[in-house]
Amino acid sequence: MSRILSRRDLDFLLYEWLGVEALTSRERFAEHSRETFDAFLDVSARIAERDFAPHNRRADLVEPTFDGERVTIIPEVAAALAVFNESGLLSAGLDAEVGGLQLPHVVARACFMWFQAANIATASYPMLSIGNASLLLAHGTPEQIETYAKPILDGRFTGTMCLSEPQAGSSLSDVTTRATPSPDGSYRVTGSKMWISGGDHELSETIVHLVLARVAGAPPGVKSLSLFVVPKHHVAADGTVGERNGVALSGLNHKMGYRGTTNAVLSFEDATGYLVGQEGHGLAYMFHMMNEARIGVGAGAVALGYTGYLHALDYARERLQGRPVAAKDPAAPPVPIVEHPDVRRMLLASKAYVEGGLALVLYAAKLLDESSAENDLLLDVLTPIVKAWPSQWCRLANDHAIQIHGGYGYTREYPVEQFYRDNRLNSIHEGTDGIQGLDLLGRKVLMKDGAGLALLLDRIRDVARRSELGERVVEVADRVATTTAKLWADGNPTVALANSTAYLDAVGHLVIAWMWLSQLEAVGDKTGDFYAGKRLAARYFITHELPRTGPLLDLLDSRDTLLADLDPATL
Amino acid sequence: MSRILSRRDLDFLLYEWLGVEALTSRERFAEHSRETFDAFLDVSARIAERDFAPHNRRADLVEPTFDGERVTIIPEVAAALAVFNESGLLSAGLDAEVGGLQLPHVVARACFMWFQAANIATASYPMLSIGNASLLLAHGTPEQIETYAKPILDGRFTGTMCLSEPQAGSSLSDVTTRATPSPDGSYRVTGSKMWISGGDHELSETIVHLVLARVAGAPPGVKSLSLFVVPKHHVAADGTVGERNGVALSGLNHKMGYRGTTNAVLSFEDATGYLVGQEGHGLAYMFHMMNEARIGVGAGAVALGYTGYLHALDYARERLQGRPVAAKDPAAPPVPIVEHPDVRRMLLASKAYVEGGLALVLYAAKLLDESSAENDLLLDVLTPIVKAWPSQWCRLANDHAIQIHGGYGYTREYPVEQFYRDNRLNSIHEGTDGIQGLDLLGRKVLMKDGAGLALLLDRIRDVARRSELGERVVEVADRVATTTAKLWADGNPTVALANSTAYLDAVGHLVIAWMWLSQLEAVGDKTGDFYAGKRLAARYFITHELPRTGPLLDLLDSRDTLLADLDPATL
Repeated sequence: MSRILSRRDLDFLLYEWLGVEALTSRERFAEHSRETFDAFLDVSARIAERDFAPHNRRADLVEPTFDGERVTIIPEVAAALAVFNESGLLSAGLDAEVGGLQLPHVVARACFMWFQAANIATASYPMLSIGNASLLLAHGTPEQIETYAKPILDGRFTGTMCLSEPQAGSSLSDVTTRATPSPDGSYRVTGSKMWISGGDHELSETIVHLVLARVAGAPPGVKSLSLFVVPKHHVAADGTVGERNGVALSGLNHKMGYRGTTNAVLSFEDATGYLVGQEGHGLAYMFHMMNEARIGVGAGAVALGYTGYLHALDYARERLQGRPVAAKDPAAPPVPIVEHPDVRRMLLASKAYVEGGLALVLYAAKLLDESSAENDLLLDVLTPIVKAWPSQWCRLANDHAIQIHGGYGYTREYPVEQFYRDNRLNSIHEGTDGIQGLDLLGRKVLMKDGAGLALLLDRIRDVARRSELGERVVEVADRVATTTAKLWADGNPTVALANSTAYLDAVGHLVIAWMWLSQLEAVGDKTGDFYAGKRLAARYFITHELPRTGPLLDLLDSRDTLLADLDPATL
Repeated sequence: MSRILSRRDLDFLLYEWLGVEALTSRERFAEHSRETFDAFLDVSARIAERDFAPHNRRADLVEPTFDGERVTIIPEVAAALAVFNESGLLSAGLDAEVGGLQLPHVVARACFMWFQAANIATASYPMLSIGNASLLLAHGTPEQIETYAKPILDGRFTGTMCLSEPQAGSSLSDVTTRATPSPDGSYRVTGSKMWISGGDHELSETIVHLVLARVAGAPPGVKSLSLFVVPKHHVAADGTVGERNGVALSGLNHKMGYRGTTNAVLSFEDATGYLVGQEGHGLAYMFHMMNEARIGVGAGAVALGYTGYLHALDYARERLQGRPVAAKDPAAPPVPIVEHPDVRRMLLASKAYVEGGLALVLYAAKLLDESSAENDLLLDVLTPIVKAWPSQWCRLANDHAIQIHGGYGYTREYPVEQFYRDNRLNSIHEGTDGIQGLDLLGRKVLMKDGAGLALLLDRIRDVARRSELGERVVEVADRVATTTAKLWADGNPTVALANSTAYLDAVGHLVIAWMWLSQLEAVGDKTGDFYAGKRLAARYFITHELPRTGPLLDLLDSRDTLLADLDPATL
């Protein structure tokens, strides 16, 4: 059995639960079948296992270095990416006309999670490149697509997203990078960009930066930001890579995890940039991208939690230690630690988190495949939860995996501590958990007069009413509706948003409870350990986890403003 | 203001809350006064700041190495320990007749926390040495005290505790190290010991190992374990350090944190050992030690959480980013992030955890100073909470500190990620959180027909009934009493202990709520930011944190056996 991901669970979720095969009746996926889906899942598992997982620890130990001239990365990374590019998975979800496989998003997502689980740092390079190329395909000129997006999809170039600056992380309205129009229609881009994953390296012929900047003279605020393609090297019309552009690596950041991914401070100085789409629409384009990136971050968090869980499960079944609490004979042989209730608690909680998180990520990806006014609205509401919930709870699965391994889990001789360190980033990048809470309660539930939240709660109640475990879930869904109304009753954002993280936590747990009840419908009365495990985890989540929402909703109902009102001098 | 610990808070807790000055009326502390207490607190802060904190990061980056011959540690560690030894703090709490300062435990504990907060890895060496020497002072022969304990207290030798083995971590009944009596009254000790902090190095003339082993022919189980002094080198009666004993370093463990502390696998092969006390009493002696070690671990967890909080607080006051949610003007200048409610939530939660944890640790230490039948019983019940609660919640403060720093907090350019990694160990060593839950619910609340728990709950109710915030606390205390009775109603440990971690979590939060209400009594109607902060944190803990106990106690009341009953094949 693989310790990277569970193909059995993916098969259940994709085919038995989401009925992904039915997508092949759509014109876009007509060339596909269960056989082709399986083939790409197989090849993903194989490459992940053979080319990505083996250097996961070494990439953590031997970080990229910068000698002032060039960045050096262990050669296994380039080798793995070459195999990945060769597989065609780089454009798994893209149109056939740009060379894509036109796989459903949901299948492409499942495929990519094998790489995230096996080696999230190496997987970051293609993840960023795909995001970059997709944005150009959607908003770039035909020439930009030809010159920059296609070489990315061919694996010749890689891509980045340059949003943050040293003084502007979560707050993009403070971006100060400037773009000055040149007579030839290009722009001169000047400024400093921070936290640029894949920002510099020698893994590709050049690097295509997508840079958020403000055109000289534009007013402050996010609505006057524009987006520019700024290549590391000038690229001629015939595709030849030429001289360096005005982009320099100021330095590498050294992180707690994700250490195999270069993370750069980039200095743009009169760099030649090309406007993407229209001036002032930069953030809108980025957010088109960002929403997918947020699902990608949630998927990465699930993948890391999942592999941690599988490692912990194997360990708990093999490691002999201690005796049951009711045992009296000290000479009795020790039992596998999976026999101890507290180890079971951590394993079952982890199972509920990672399988629940995986279900949510795939459900969200399928909404993209079945885009409609309703599904798009639902996905908008779900996105902050898809991003933040796994970052928090699948990370807890990684924390449990350390604890289950005991002292061994705390050492670098075992992989689980790295999974934890890697996963810690997912609550930070692409919008912190706190930002997701504000997005959910401050934007998403208000959109279209609350139609998105109403839709979500209806879908939840619908499933819950059919389930014997559903009563508590319906109750929580009803409470979320009344609590939300109460919070926004007087339209005061300071009061409504005072405990937005508690809101995110409560709705997140409700959504995962729904994912579990929904899975149970596909389980039905099927027999065997796999299905029994699904029933067990669902029951655990509803009885041990969902009740956490009670105190959170009580707090929200009280419209408590302790946090908003406090005097920082007293902290 | 120091970012290591808050002297203001220590002064409040020691003098205004615990009334530590009154201890000087006791004969043991008659030589002391507030002035001497202050002098040792001052010197601790100074040495911690000057000699311990500056190499905290370097000791993490440049780990101890073993070349097969000897262990190399960065020289700053030896330099810091020399200053520490010189200060007399190594024997801060010990009797004057062995050269001790005879400081109250509670003051000695507060002093030592400065070193744990500044550099937990370097502080581990004296912590282990003090524990080792104290055990020998209590249970060793006069000769053992002279030969081993006194040189430790003089700073010439260091000490370790050798309990775990590769196959026996939490389960000491599985210890297989053997001790064979020699005709000269000594023993030959053979076996492998794991996770030995300070297990090998060149920081002292020799290392005194206290080794748990089974005398040849003794029956299995924990009650037939004996304790032996096994020095790294033979020590002559005149104190001269001679040839190597049969103890070899098999290898160093490489941890996620605490990287400056050597952590060894030791191989004992026919090593000469000397029995401490009587055969078969080894675990009892170790547990005398272990209880203090567990308080020490809790103190370390508080110290790391506290310094993380202070760093995060400074950062949040300085870092400008974003605008209040109600602000409309994007051109308005950014505000310090302490203005954002979710940052305040993390700061205030952290304050409530670390100041609450500090109060608990000092309260427990003072129970040692005021030893009585009642206080000893109370300390017995509190010990698993003092150990586990800060390991979990002050670690969460470290997690919050990373989040408050955003992307910066995730890098090794800022100290908060190291604090987190270091603190992760505290939920594992000296008994995992799971073990503490079993100890509390399976042993401590049953002792003397439940008298310990009854005493604890009475003390809690007593304070709570006098507080305007106390109603909810009394309710939770009453619930803990009835829940405990219900759990043990039929005396079935499998059912009673099925959710022992939930019990530990609930009682832990109740105890910290009590600590907060008790502090408020010392705050009274005093004015100023410091006291306002205490009121704020107390209110936060009671209104935002204590309600977590509701679902936990509901679960316990249901006597749910999902975890005990599950089939591991379904995980």
